[in-house]
Amino acid sequence: MLQLSKFPIKTLKSAPKVSDNRSTSLLLQAGFIRQEMAGAYNYLPFGLKVLRKIESIVREEMNSLGAQEILMPALGSKEHWEQTGRWDKVDVLFKLPASTGKEYALNPTHEELVTPLLGEFIQSYKDLEFGVYQIQNKFRNEKRAKSGLLRGREFLMKDLYSFHKSEETLLVYYEEVKASYKRVFDRLGLGNDTYETIAGGGDFTTLNSHEYQTILGIGEDNIYICNECNTSHNEEVVDSSIGFVCFKCKSKNHRIEKASEVGNIFPLMTKFTDSFDVKYTDSDGKAKEVYMGCYGIGISRLVGVIAEYFMDEKGLVWPEHIAPATHYIIVMGDNLDKAITLSKKLEADGKEVIIDDREKVGFGQKASDADLLGIPYRIVLSDKTLEAGGYELKSRLSDETQIIAL
Amino acid sequence: MLQLSKFPIKTLKSAPKVSDNRSTSLLLQAGFIRQEMAGAYNYLPFGLKVLRKIESIVREEMNSLGAQEILMPALGSKEHWEQTGRWDKVDVLFKLPASTGKEYALNPTHEELVTPLLGEFIQSYKDLEFGVYQIQNKFRNEKRAKSGLLRGREFLMKDLYSFHKSEETLLVYYEEVKASYKRVFDRLGLGNDTYETIAGGGDFTTLNSHEYQTILGIGEDNIYICNECNTSHNEEVVDSSIGFVCFKCKSKNHRIEKASEVGNIFPLMTKFTDSFDVKYTDSDGKAKEVYMGCYGIGISRLVGVIAEYFMDEKGLVWPEHIAPATHYIIVMGDNLDKAITLSKKLEADGKEVIIDDREKVGFGQKASDADLLGIPYRIVLSDKTLEAGGYELKSRLSDETQIIAL
Repeated sequence: MLQLSKFPIKTLKSAPKVSDNRSTSLLLQAGFIRQEMAGAYNYLPFGLKVLRKIESIVREEMNSLGAQEILMPALGSKEHWEQTGRWDKVDVLFKLPASTGKEYALNPTHEELVTPLLGEFIQSYKDLEFGVYQIQNKFRNEKRAKSGLLRGREFLMKDLYSFHKSEETLLVYYEEVKASYKRVFDRLGLGNDTYETIAGGGDFTTLNSHEYQTILGIGEDNIYICNECNTSHNEEVVDSSIGFVCFKCKSKNHRIEKASEVGNIFPLMTKFTDSFDVKYTDSDGKAKEVYMGCYGIGISRLVGVIAEYFMDEKGLVWPEHIAPATHYIIVMGDNLDKAITLSKKLEADGKEVIIDDREKVGFGQKASDADLLGIPYRIVLSDKTLEAGGYELKSRLSDETQIIAL
Repeated sequence: MLQLSKFPIKTLKSAPKVSDNRSTSLLLQAGFIRQEMAGAYNYLPFGLKVLRKIESIVREEMNSLGAQEILMPALGSKEHWEQTGRWDKVDVLFKLPASTGKEYALNPTHEELVTPLLGEFIQSYKDLEFGVYQIQNKFRNEKRAKSGLLRGREFLMKDLYSFHKSEETLLVYYEEVKASYKRVFDRLGLGNDTYETIAGGGDFTTLNSHEYQTILGIGEDNIYICNECNTSHNEEVVDSSIGFVCFKCKSKNHRIEKASEVGNIFPLMTKFTDSFDVKYTDSDGKAKEVYMGCYGIGISRLVGVIAEYFMDEKGLVWPEHIAPATHYIIVMGDNLDKAITLSKKLEADGKEVIIDDREKVGFGQKASDADLLGIPYRIVLSDKTLEAGGYELKSRLSDETQIIAL
């Protein structure tokens, strides 16, 4: 349990003005995050808890896929980036001058590292197929960073890379990842409004890639959703001369929504294994190309997207398994001991508790902080509720209260 | 459980030659790590497990201290570093040019961030005292990086910062951290050879700082240990003109040992709170200075130190609660089902299991890989052990085997 009387972070009396979205204001006001510089944020304890819970859900689903977790560095060697020709091509690549006279990359993505790293272990068809992932900080040299967690210069991502014997088996795995991503966004509470979206394949495949786009007023992308079959398309794949035609059912009937990209999956084919000369010897003795896929989820961006998606007029609203705590106990009067006992009971049941035992803070302030923080359940423990028979329980999303015996 | 038949990483037939230490060779041979560039490493699954387990032990002890976990970015604003005068003073500070025309710091330490970050919440004596910590990647622009995990350009640290009303209460907390660090190094198995070591205080306090030095042949530091009272001193505090005199008991009788610094604690006093003008109003209405301490533990360095400290002629040796797995089951013949059943039984008991079910790999190779990886317990499950009554159990550090019924 966490007692606010001993907790260093305080909420702000009013929401700081932030130009482009309200959830950032709320995350600041509630003391979840603080900006270090445009595009780089400090996570205070409640913000970090949300980040870690999203991370855990993603990790569980990656492990369910059978992928192995690894951790690659933020620093990358220039040689690796030159080997793929991307040292000078990726405009958001931070280049770090070192006292050795060398330059290092500050990796915005890790194909340049993971391909030689795992390629070392690929000799024969018996060494394939597999997936590895990491949950790791990435950097982008953005000209303009959005305020908040939606577009940062430093951000946390999950990136999964898979290695395959053929395009066919890559595409089988690709579908498994789609199913896994659906579970992730369902568990995060975004399932209903997160669309697997057809996007361009870049310059090294004729296949499409897919983005996961969550409908959001402040989203940076426009997605075209077919009204007949619900297939979603990124603006970039819509033919501007003939207008929208659904890739799946050919209908022209569609709606356009603003959305924020929370994930993307990409059939890399042999682009990177070719660059690093990663091949395998098949059972027929022939050297063959290794096919790769890459699959990202923006973990820190999801903190911002989930905040923006669920917030209401009173403040933040977190789904129970992502919230910094499940219960917020407002203690009034001389009832801290009872609150601690109740809190231990809840914790034994797997719940997480914030006890608001601040002195000289009135009920109104405590209640509005409980709402602002977005904790799913609010408990009031006061002489009055005890007289009424116990403690008062209220859900964040309802005004109904009930008295429950201690 | 992890089945090696499906695991992408393989051990190397022989240990790669690495100039300055053998544990790095073993970590490479066993497939725990791979170098991306000098001073920046990839953690493969087993290496990452060790890293995370060390991290968990440190986190538990920080939480026991009552410190709150936060997460600060790797990028720091130049303004913050200029405000303390360290932008041009810290020679290992990486300076990152951005497309905005600005420069950012790639933080080697976080006083420049944590002081204004938490300073915001300090107004009155009621807001003090507290500690916050993070487990986060740091960067040092080293001219020369050591091979392995002992001195990197990118490395994982735990850094705790505490904020106090006075020097007296800072020093009380400082002693609590010492007790906490003792528990950390005891739990990591390094307690017997890790010395709290008196070191210099730098230019902003007349007090000493303290390092935690683990005796190690490849250590970069020399520590002077008093033979009378066991007090350890960094070379830098030994007066070169008069020779060693114990700071505690004044004895001159001492030994000198090579050691590696795994932690340090530092009474920062008001150096940083002064720079950022963080003051508090005391109960007497007067504005007073805020005292700070900072306390580091090198998490990724500890992977290297523990590897070097415990290794033997057969390979790595990990303490049970740090090892990538507790049990390594060698399956020979048609006994995989039995191994999986046994493995589930062990896992239900809180153990972690690697099953070596690789086909066409002989017993000798499997046994030497079990030793190389340093897994505490080796189990053999073969027709022969089944005939003898069950499976064979052997500790990594003993040659004695016993047969245990399934």
